[in-house]
Amino acid sequence: MNVAVTQTIEGEFAMNNNIKSNNKALFTLDEDASEIKLHCPISMPDASGFLWNNNMMLQMNCRGYASAQHMQPEPAKYSYGQSIEAKTFMQPEHHYHASHPGRFFYIKVDDQHLFSLPYEPMRVSLDKFEFFQGTNNIGWRITQRGLHVEIKVKLAENDAIECWEMSVINQSHSQIKVDIYPCFSIGYTSWMNQSACFDESINGIIANYVTPYQKVEDYYKNKDFLDTTVLMTNASVLGYEAQLKAFEGEGGLHAPSALKQKKLANSVALYQTPVAVLHHQIVLPSAKEHNIKWLFGPAKNVEHANTLKKTYLSNTSSDKQDFVKPPAYLFSTQDKVFDNFVNTWLPRQIQYHSQSNRLTRDPQTRNFLQDHMASVLISPSHAKTHFLFALAQQHSNGAMPDGILLHPDAELKYINQIPHSDHNVWLFIFLDAYLQHSGDVNILNEQVGFSDLPTAHSVYEHLKLAAEYLYSQLDHRGLSLIQQGDWCDPMNMVGKEGKGVSFWLSLASAYAFGIFASIAKIQGELADNAHWLSRKTQLNDAVNQQGWDGQWYARGICDNGRIFGVAADKEGQIFLNPQSWAMLSHASKQQDLDLIFTAIDNKLKTPYGIAMLAPAYTQMDADIGRVTQKFPGSAENGSVYNHAASFYAFALFKEGFADRGYEVLRSMLVDNDDALVKQQLPNFIPNYYRGAYYQYPEVAGKSSHLFNTGTCAWFFRCVVELMYGITKTSTSIKINPCIPSHMLPCSVEFKAFGQAVNIHYESRTDIEDLEFTLQNASISNHMSAPEIMLDGSQNKALISVYIPTTEIKDSPQRAENVQA
Amino acid sequence: MNVAVTQTIEGEFAMNNNIKSNNKALFTLDEDASEIKLHCPISMPDASGFLWNNNMMLQMNCRGYASAQHMQPEPAKYSYGQSIEAKTFMQPEHHYHASHPGRFFYIKVDDQHLFSLPYEPMRVSLDKFEFFQGTNNIGWRITQRGLHVEIKVKLAENDAIECWEMSVINQSHSQIKVDIYPCFSIGYTSWMNQSACFDESINGIIANYVTPYQKVEDYYKNKDFLDTTVLMTNASVLGYEAQLKAFEGEGGLHAPSALKQKKLANSVALYQTPVAVLHHQIVLPSAKEHNIKWLFGPAKNVEHANTLKKTYLSNTSSDKQDFVKPPAYLFSTQDKVFDNFVNTWLPRQIQYHSQSNRLTRDPQTRNFLQDHMASVLISPSHAKTHFLFALAQQHSNGAMPDGILLHPDAELKYINQIPHSDHNVWLFIFLDAYLQHSGDVNILNEQVGFSDLPTAHSVYEHLKLAAEYLYSQLDHRGLSLIQQGDWCDPMNMVGKEGKGVSFWLSLASAYAFGIFASIAKIQGELADNAHWLSRKTQLNDAVNQQGWDGQWYARGICDNGRIFGVAADKEGQIFLNPQSWAMLSHASKQQDLDLIFTAIDNKLKTPYGIAMLAPAYTQMDADIGRVTQKFPGSAENGSVYNHAASFYAFALFKEGFADRGYEVLRSMLVDNDDALVKQQLPNFIPNYYRGAYYQYPEVAGKSSHLFNTGTCAWFFRCVVELMYGITKTSTSIKINPCIPSHMLPCSVEFKAFGQAVNIHYESRTDIEDLEFTLQNASISNHMSAPEIMLDGSQNKALISVYIPTTEIKDSPQRAENVQA
Repeated sequence: MNVAVTQTIEGEFAMNNNIKSNNKALFTLDEDASEIKLHCPISMPDASGFLWNNNMMLQMNCRGYASAQHMQPEPAKYSYGQSIEAKTFMQPEHHYHASHPGRFFYIKVDDQHLFSLPYEPMRVSLDKFEFFQGTNNIGWRITQRGLHVEIKVKLAENDAIECWEMSVINQSHSQIKVDIYPCFSIGYTSWMNQSACFDESINGIIANYVTPYQKVEDYYKNKDFLDTTVLMTNASVLGYEAQLKAFEGEGGLHAPSALKQKKLANSVALYQTPVAVLHHQIVLPSAKEHNIKWLFGPAKNVEHANTLKKTYLSNTSSDKQDFVKPPAYLFSTQDKVFDNFVNTWLPRQIQYHSQSNRLTRDPQTRNFLQDHMASVLISPSHAKTHFLFALAQQHSNGAMPDGILLHPDAELKYINQIPHSDHNVWLFIFLDAYLQHSGDVNILNEQVGFSDLPTAHSVYEHLKLAAEYLYSQLDHRGLSLIQQGDWCDPMNMVGKEGKGVSFWLSLASAYAFGIFASIAKIQGELADNAHWLSRKTQLNDAVNQQGWDGQWYARGICDNGRIFGVAADKEGQIFLNPQSWAMLSHASKQQDLDLIFTAIDNKLKTPYGIAMLAPAYTQMDADIGRVTQKFPGSAENGSVYNHAASFYAFALFKEGFADRGYEVLRSMLVDNDDALVKQQLPNFIPNYYRGAYYQYPEVAGKSSHLFNTGTCAWFFRCVVELMYGITKTSTSIKINPCIPSHMLPCSVEFKAFGQAVNIHYESRTDIEDLEFTLQNASISNHMSAPEIMLDGSQNKALISVYIPTTEIKDSPQRAENVQA
Repeated sequence: MNVAVTQTIEGEFAMNNNIKSNNKALFTLDEDASEIKLHCPISMPDASGFLWNNNMMLQMNCRGYASAQHMQPEPAKYSYGQSIEAKTFMQPEHHYHASHPGRFFYIKVDDQHLFSLPYEPMRVSLDKFEFFQGTNNIGWRITQRGLHVEIKVKLAENDAIECWEMSVINQSHSQIKVDIYPCFSIGYTSWMNQSACFDESINGIIANYVTPYQKVEDYYKNKDFLDTTVLMTNASVLGYEAQLKAFEGEGGLHAPSALKQKKLANSVALYQTPVAVLHHQIVLPSAKEHNIKWLFGPAKNVEHANTLKKTYLSNTSSDKQDFVKPPAYLFSTQDKVFDNFVNTWLPRQIQYHSQSNRLTRDPQTRNFLQDHMASVLISPSHAKTHFLFALAQQHSNGAMPDGILLHPDAELKYINQIPHSDHNVWLFIFLDAYLQHSGDVNILNEQVGFSDLPTAHSVYEHLKLAAEYLYSQLDHRGLSLIQQGDWCDPMNMVGKEGKGVSFWLSLASAYAFGIFASIAKIQGELADNAHWLSRKTQLNDAVNQQGWDGQWYARGICDNGRIFGVAADKEGQIFLNPQSWAMLSHASKQQDLDLIFTAIDNKLKTPYGIAMLAPAYTQMDADIGRVTQKFPGSAENGSVYNHAASFYAFALFKEGFADRGYEVLRSMLVDNDDALVKQQLPNFIPNYYRGAYYQYPEVAGKSSHLFNTGTCAWFFRCVVELMYGITKTSTSIKINPCIPSHMLPCSVEFKAFGQAVNIHYESRTDIEDLEFTLQNASISNHMSAPEIMLDGSQNKALISVYIPTTEIKDSPQRAENVQA
């Protein structure tokens, strides 16, 4: 077995070099983008895929490390690390290490050659390696020592259970003896009680533990926990190891002593750290294939495990229905990276958000509203339900709470215990999106209660109260008080004494008031319309008078009266959000946009996107708060925070800057040119890429690998609503595109009013205004979006949009404010 | 470098076999017991030593893994694991793993041979290995590849800083080139901000981080934290690695990629997991020695680090004063294992407890009182100060709180948030010990306030209130209500409804009342004396009527009226504590002792000591509580819980059962015969050895490795006060021995009243009563202890105690109750 171990050391960069020397793409996609394949485990060691279902989330990295959580009902683990880990929210830049939980398969060929799949923990150089993320599965295809091994994992739809299968094909010309040892981490489960053994009835390892607690009341909270982890199989088991130390021996996970023996020792764990290792053995003739399945996950007890086994490990249960829905829109442009993402992976990430609520029971109010906002484009009824659910938690004074409690037992945790000032804003933004894409104005008359008052009021009245509450939170300067943070959670000391204000929030409130004004108009409340338009103007004016720093907008004013986010600051000189939202709220004057763009381009733009502030803070600024203590270029302290960048893109498209807007969107995506820097696959947009490009260029662009982000909804709205320009009334679609010239011709397919729709966009030199055809018949030829009635009379509505080349430019007139 | 790696795998059991085949002792002690040496890193992989000072604790295992905490003021780390670890109290059976924090030294010999000292992470088989725990240091002496390497660590007295030094001697006949790479874990320090780099001014690695928090108030709590970890050296540094992943590469810690190169890459950590690796290089001629020093620990910033460096890394600072005090008693018996422990390691463990308070700021009241009770034998004034400090936290209703707050800012945490019923009992036990060993009856008139009332009352009045409070907590049956636990913390559901009672606590209260009665006598309060003697009898009678199960005493009665700890129970049939305390309180009748001993011998006795209950619970019993959920044989669920065993030993000696008592004490110690089972060195008594001998024999006897235990004080009292029988009045010493025959002759040296005292004990066949000589002159010859006045007129008081052989037996008459 020394050979294998030597290989580990010697072959270290062999695979990496293989990729580089052959100049092969680091990753590739299937033609229909339904699978992303990574061809090397070394170049992007943290590259990962994720799966989820109604009860859990599993993130697998390309080397075999796993992070999994299930809801019981708070997030819990069933595969732990080896120390007592803190309960915490999902963190960016997750750190993988030798003792990290994983799903490993040791393979011994002909009693001689040992290696581990997918790559960890032995790190033996493999003849051929492919890690793939499918829409509904994750897996590997690996060739080594004459064997072709495919490993796949899917999740059950409703149970928290990982469904693994392996196919082994003998590609050599002779028979091969194959010993297979799945090794699934269970880890340090409990200081009160942990053990593991083999159980014949489940044909696998069962690990029992007691979630640690000390208070009697917690016993009653915990007693229905699934405090058992099982690894079950449909294959015959020759032996097992349930105790980690006994398995590792002096060899360690990278060369387990137990695997030196022909047979495993069948060790049990008795208040010792458990592991789930099984031993299967096959003798595989040339060209033959063998299949094995395993289930891994939490269970209540043996009986429950057996139920899971019957459901998911029987012969008929292998092909579960795909969990991820087919996309609602199919885009086709000149940019395949863009198409792949928006057609497959963006809707998937949106679905993840709206189903999982980021694996919390108390999602932040702004996250909850934005995560479900994306659904307005896919499933308006789903979106509506969630909007009304949130609205019912509004206080009768108009204030939205810091988190939406998904269950009566849920509690506000972590960041939701800090008072933030922005939550009301997102109600307006959500409702605007909902109206744009559903045309369902009836929602305004839906009756909803309050958290402190069961009396139902109309959605319109709720929104009016929300607007009044926002307005009530202006200080004597007419600016929005920030409290202990606005959208930027860790900006927690600007207003800790109740005096500091946020220019961003002032602008966001102005934007919200503008939306409410247009809603009032829809509702026929013309006095409200005028009133809130005037308040919008009042806020914009206040910001312009006090927040315009000469070249860009400042971020806020601290309790002590110090303005920040201005040219005079050495760090945190410019923030992206006030600029974006000054455009959205129409505070920014047309002639100032050039100044703003110059400042953004010079100070915030990086090769990997637009940073949210610069220069990143390098030391605590106690006037501003915790954001300044984060590592420079990470998270809110000056990363390319994609959520903020998506606001900017939205504002740019809204103002007609197609090229700029598209560039911002595109920089969020991963392609083979920047994957090595970003270190992730194009299966999701992370919450950030490292910023601080001028301070720490060596790490700039690195992905956070955290796929929880408010970006998705905005990205999708940018594409559908602004770039392709598609909105709906209750009976028609409107088309008002803003497409960069290099993307034309392009098209999109979707359904509207039960009717398949195909819209084709192309430029024409011979026209001066936008022209439209429906089934090749001209329907309009003026600049503003036509209302296209779809009567379902045709199998497919074929719409063509002709864009005059003269109109395609990146310095448009300001588009008319749709809300006003 | 393949050679070395191959060795790792092949040499796995070589060292182990070396030990076994040579039939060498697993460990040895210096002649004066001041150093314990372990000769193999494999046989007892978790064997460890510990150091502490006024600010920190460091536990090093024999293979190089480390656990360290410093107080700022709550326990904090400066060397972390690689995941976000939970803040928790010190846990038993700490789990070491490949990513565990450690202090490693990679050594490369002549550019070819790489190995790591002390053993981890490479696990290369070493020519000669010695791990040693000294009283003031921990270290290794290792021979490999012609080099003799000695590594030592001490702690500074007041600063939280590890002082490391290495001596390398070339034992070969030719020059050797030695590359030395200290590799000290820093780990995942913070999700907010973590980084590390080399700093020239400190000549070492500096890692900065921000202790994570979200609430503004925590910023003010945290801002003076030592959020910097440094590794500094007096040697010249050729290169460094400050980023863990860059150091490990694809090789991993067991074969770091960085060490394949001639030079390190000088990587920094930028929001990446830090590590502290330095590179030193020496060319060592034959027979020459080279020395290097390092400092490792937390600092506030570079300036603070430089101050530490000046203080502890200068040439003159190498020999810090020894921190551990010389022992107050020197025993000499026929049992060297016993002598070694009680002369050196027991006083050291006692000093650890009384200085560190178990690394908490809110020690449990019972722990605080017992930990400092040991000091009455060593430093009565220290003991007194701490007793009065605790007493000042008594409520004016007489109740002691669940924890003693060591600082006004400290808070009751973890288990101290659960109401326990036993805390008052320990006041009496402490005071009894204090009076026995100091003779300082004046303490009874000391004036002390209350937690809720500043008016000072005498200690006597405090104790009377404490006794009244205990008495007030009896139920209608005259038994002590248990609330959510007594001494046994996790027995938390017996009385959760306020009805359940504890027979143990009833007996402990009776014992306390007896003590108070004798204190009343001392104070001349004869009415109180009679009153509390009668209440003692009342409680004993109540227990005898309701708690005697026919062969032993039951443990309690649950809220629902169910008696438990009785023959009818399948699990938790018999508990040790009620038996021990029935002897202490004199509830047990002389004729019942044989029944009790038979039950204990049959059901609780194991080869590794007396279990605290049996059979261990294997499932939750919701009438009893959390104790039944712990793993069978671990901790309070039926382990050999040494604290409980020490009560039993105390009771046995008190009743004159010398052989039985000694056997119980002796089973707590580690010798070469049982070390492989216990898996620890004889440098401390752990809080438990695994019990459940009949249920899980394969792990029975295994040490918890947790050196926090209330055992020490009782063990020491057993030896000094009961076995050697030495107590003091304010002017004299009294001697009333209870020594097993096989231990005679024996002697002890100590100081009393400023006078050196040597007492020699031997048996004589020609006498019928104890006989005593002072300076060879007979001073008494009757059975009860004489009062020996020491006037300091001699250089040393030489006392001989002659014990008639007829008196040496293990079934004595009950000794007269000293309190009554």
